[in-house]
Amino acid sequence: MTRLADNSYGKCGVRLTKVSRAGAQHVLQEYTVQVALGGAFGPVYTDGDNSSCIPTDTMKNTVYALARTNEFDCPEAFASILADHFLRFDQVAWAEVSIDEQGWSRITVDGAAHPHSFTRQGSGVRTARVRRERGASSHWGGIRGLEVLKTTQSSFTGFFKDRFTTLPESTDRIFATAVDAEWEYAAGQAGAGRAGGAAPNGGAGTLAGTFEAARAALLEAFALHDSASVQQTLYAMGEALLARCPLVRSVSLRMPNQHRLLVNLGPFGLENRNEIFVATSEPYGQINGTVSRE
Amino acid sequence: MTRLADNSYGKCGVRLTKVSRAGAQHVLQEYTVQVALGGAFGPVYTDGDNSSCIPTDTMKNTVYALARTNEFDCPEAFASILADHFLRFDQVAWAEVSIDEQGWSRITVDGAAHPHSFTRQGSGVRTARVRRERGASSHWGGIRGLEVLKTTQSSFTGFFKDRFTTLPESTDRIFATAVDAEWEYAAGQAGAGRAGGAAPNGGAGTLAGTFEAARAALLEAFALHDSASVQQTLYAMGEALLARCPLVRSVSLRMPNQHRLLVNLGPFGLENRNEIFVATSEPYGQINGTVSRE
Amino acid sequence: MTRLADNSYGKCGVRLTKVSRAGAQHVLQEYTVQVALGGAFGPVYTDGDNSSCIPTDTMKNTVYALARTNEFDCPEAFASILADHFLRFDQVAWAEVSIDEQGWSRITVDGAAHPHSFTRQGSGVRTARVRRERGASSHWGGIRGLEVLKTTQSSFTGFFKDRFTTLPESTDRIFATAVDAEWEYAAGQAGAGRAGGAAPNGGAGTLAGTFEAARAALLEAFALHDSASVQQTLYAMGEALLARCPLVRSVSLRMPNQHRLLVNLGPFGLENRNEIFVATSEPYGQINGTVSRE
Amino acid sequence: MTRLADNSYGKCGVRLTKVSRAGAQHVLQEYTVQVALGGAFGPVYTDGDNSSCIPTDTMKNTVYALARTNEFDCPEAFASILADHFLRFDQVAWAEVSIDEQGWSRITVDGAAHPHSFTRQGSGVRTARVRRERGASSHWGGIRGLEVLKTTQSSFTGFFKDRFTTLPESTDRIFATAVDAEWEYAAGQAGAGRAGGAAPNGGAGTLAGTFEAARAALLEAFALHDSASVQQTLYAMGEALLARCPLVRSVSLRMPNQHRLLVNLGPFGLENRNEIFVATSEPYGQINGTVSRE
Repeated sequence: MTRLADNSYGKCGVRLTKVSRAGAQHVLQEYTVQVALGGAFGPVYTDGDNSSCIPTDTMKNTVYALARTNEFDCPEAFASILADHFLRFDQVAWAEVSIDEQGWSRITVDGAAHPHSFTRQGSGVRTARVRRERGASSHWGGIRGLEVLKTTQSSFTGFFKDRFTTLPESTDRIFATAVDAEWEYAAGQAGAGRAGGAAPNGGAGTLAGTFEAARAALLEAFALHDSASVQQTLYAMGEALLARCPLVRSVSLRMPNQHRLLVNLGPFGLENRNEIFVATSEPYGQINGTVSRE
Repeated sequence: MTRLADNSYGKCGVRLTKVSRAGAQHVLQEYTVQVALGGAFGPVYTDGDNSSCIPTDTMKNTVYALARTNEFDCPEAFASILADHFLRFDQVAWAEVSIDEQGWSRITVDGAAHPHSFTRQGSGVRTARVRRERGASSHWGGIRGLEVLKTTQSSFTGFFKDRFTTLPESTDRIFATAVDAEWEYAAGQAGAGRAGGAAPNGGAGTLAGTFEAARAALLEAFALHDSASVQQTLYAMGEALLARCPLVRSVSLRMPNQHRLLVNLGPFGLENRNEIFVATSEPYGQINGTVSRE
Repeated sequence: MTRLADNSYGKCGVRLTKVSRAGAQHVLQEYTVQVALGGAFGPVYTDGDNSSCIPTDTMKNTVYALARTNEFDCPEAFASILADHFLRFDQVAWAEVSIDEQGWSRITVDGAAHPHSFTRQGSGVRTARVRRERGASSHWGGIRGLEVLKTTQSSFTGFFKDRFTTLPESTDRIFATAVDAEWEYAAGQAGAGRAGGAAPNGGAGTLAGTFEAARAALLEAFALHDSASVQQTLYAMGEALLARCPLVRSVSLRMPNQHRLLVNLGPFGLENRNEIFVATSEPYGQINGTVSRE
Repeated sequence: MTRLADNSYGKCGVRLTKVSRAGAQHVLQEYTVQVALGGAFGPVYTDGDNSSCIPTDTMKNTVYALARTNEFDCPEAFASILADHFLRFDQVAWAEVSIDEQGWSRITVDGAAHPHSFTRQGSGVRTARVRRERGASSHWGGIRGLEVLKTTQSSFTGFFKDRFTTLPESTDRIFATAVDAEWEYAAGQAGAGRAGGAAPNGGAGTLAGTFEAARAALLEAFALHDSASVQQTLYAMGEALLARCPLVRSVSLRMPNQHRLLVNLGPFGLENRNEIFVATSEPYGQINGTVSRE
């Protein structure tokens, strides 16, 4: 005998572009939305009974319709609107909505920000995620792939050694990574970015403004840290983010160690004065940690 | 005040090629290995104290050294060897090793399998994963990206409808997906594939042979099922896998719905008799489920 | 003063799925089509005069409409149909149509090929390309990404050395590559695969059958060649293809050298008997050559 | 009889990181280098005679050694150094070196550019290419994947119509693209960026400074153009680049039309006031053109 032990389903890759043309400057929002639902869907799997099944095509339509009838100033806010909507159906026990934002910056022309022309922002995709259950709710913001590199103030010494250790100790190495960070907001902040009024990126005390504050905190902490390991810098970056972002209760960081290896120039009669390196795609270290308020 | 709430680290993308030249036919194994460790590593993050830190470079060396000194006939077996190794260090509380196998088939020449020349296998990457803690152990096999398509015997009718539903009911649609399946082995099977003797792919009753049995079960169930939904076919595929693979206790399946949409040829005065479709990359449905023995 | 020195435009990524349901077995064709046109389009660029501009959206529609109203047994044949169509417009001086075929094999159930269920074929995407100008025409078939590896009968010795050479000579190395081959058909063969009758893959003497013959020739020549270099094997593979495929006048091959490097196990007190290797993603050698009939 | 009609070979994906630590601010250069050679290499292919064959491994070593022994302020300059080097070998008839630069910007801390910490630049990879033959030389700069979008001042009307045309005319559409541009420098400018002295990005009159001038010209022209078609904007962008960059003699542009389609909200009783769009990955238009000085 077999049974359905777990199930969920949803729609991925719903690409939304919203242009708000009300003001002198057009506002452009580009989101890729993912919806996942869990609940009383067992008979769909086991009996071919689709009567409870909300088609994923309907989820897609819902994204576009609710984007039209709601205002929102950040992906966290739109994810909340969508999760609330789906939780209203009786058969839905939980709804999780994840959003990636394709960030755009205004093109500068003659020193001024252009009102309707944009170029893609630099490194790091903004992310948001909201999970609603009956009586419970969690929401997260994040950044994925924030690429950073420092050419000094990074060492790795005093580590554990066994018979398979060949890595030399290093007091001055290149440190390169692409940071994935996801921060969980403290309870009660879920709606903070939605109700009108708040300007986009209205400061670190708002949902919409948390992203820029978090990104700046990560970049600065990375720049200023005198690193004894990727792990130690990860922790320092998490601490800096918490210090700067009052709405955040914890942050999970994932940082690959994108090695830059010193090239051996000895065979060519040349000294390598910590100047010539090769970047390698794989293998790579992967360092993970979660930093939270006590 | 902040604290380190969680942490882990490891090495990803360790690419191993092993050639066994003992017999008349060379045996080729290509694995990409990932090692992750958890345990008493807090001071690495919070204090810059690296004395407990096993460098990820050492993990890489260990993969190559243990591949040289051990025989194994499937990735599950090698993952077990590696996880056992890392759990021997005092500071390690758990070790998880994941492997992707790049599958190769022998080239056929004059109707015979060539002894040392290979071409890449068809769709679907073989995966394995072992997690060891002190006093506990879990191990999984899997396949990722098994692409299948059927041109009939797939319908989707009788589904839930609301104001945002526009999807028409369909009694004969194309069903295309790329199956990700991961099956958990029942306890006590961890070492079954390692001790010598067992031929590679020695039948569904061995770890090494489970993969081919599972792959065949998935393909056949997909081909034969008269589908009322992706969900229902997913469940049928899980049931078929459990029926064919005695070492498996449960299987988790993830199946994107890779839509093929009927093209509207009406503007050109042409009828589309369920013949001309457009494949779309996004958005796509995503159906997940876990099927287990009672 | 500036001028428009060159121009072309078209549509990429037109994904076509065609199902022919006439016989006992459904026939499945999945093509990704690209159309490019050149001609009297200068005023579109320089004057904003769109009167000659065939919208790329129309190109997309044309692909679906002509797929409905024509039969074709290989991508070369459909590319010819499309190129002929576009050359009929006065403003078009040349039309080039490129097709990638997503290959599908029938799933085997109880030893028999299933009539309507498929899984993706193994390594290597089939390609086709046709270019028509007024009074001239060229057409090509091809395969992209045919992955092969041999574990012996590959050496590289006696090469040119200078002050920057550190590579040791090797008499027994792994040879791995992913072959891109594009073959040009001799003039007068363009329509050979279109007119009814010919069975799909009707032998090396037909357009439709050339692909399987070419693929087999490449695989066998790779397997059997005792290689002194990637270059020499490339030439042998080109010769084998020409010998097997009478409609082909020349073939261009591109073969990356996907290195498998011997791992140094010395630091661990272990000998590496040509058994343990690391695959590297980059850098990689790239060897190109065109083999033609005299 | 068969013959070798054409051949070339080289090394791809040579990843170089160079850190210059002389000044108060570290200078970081990250290049991915590709070397291709043609010449008297026929016997390597046809006879297994490797005596003329410069190993691709040697090419890789050469990149690192010459990076150590030379100073260069832009990828064009380093590509010239490498191409010159390889052309000195008798068996080499031509050498082509292509470079992608991974651009890094200094992290801002307390309003100041940090001396040794960087984050990845925004959209658009800088490229360079040099081709040297005996007695001839060409060199190019470029940018790949410069993503831009404008929310208005883009129309497409008055186009050619046939029986397969269904596209409605549009007087106000979104225009999104990712520009690939490659510009050819006028003869005699090859060495302009190499000899010492010139500051990096020393203005549009230098090789090193051409990139920033070209990028700014492309962005501004895109922002300001009232577009009748992608083609017309492409031409305007090419003209703007030539006007701003005196060393450039012509520029080739490739611009995909990354469609944003208006979503039909009618079924939900909602009007779409040019506000809600879906971005589609494929199919996409592809517009190409070369703009040159008379």
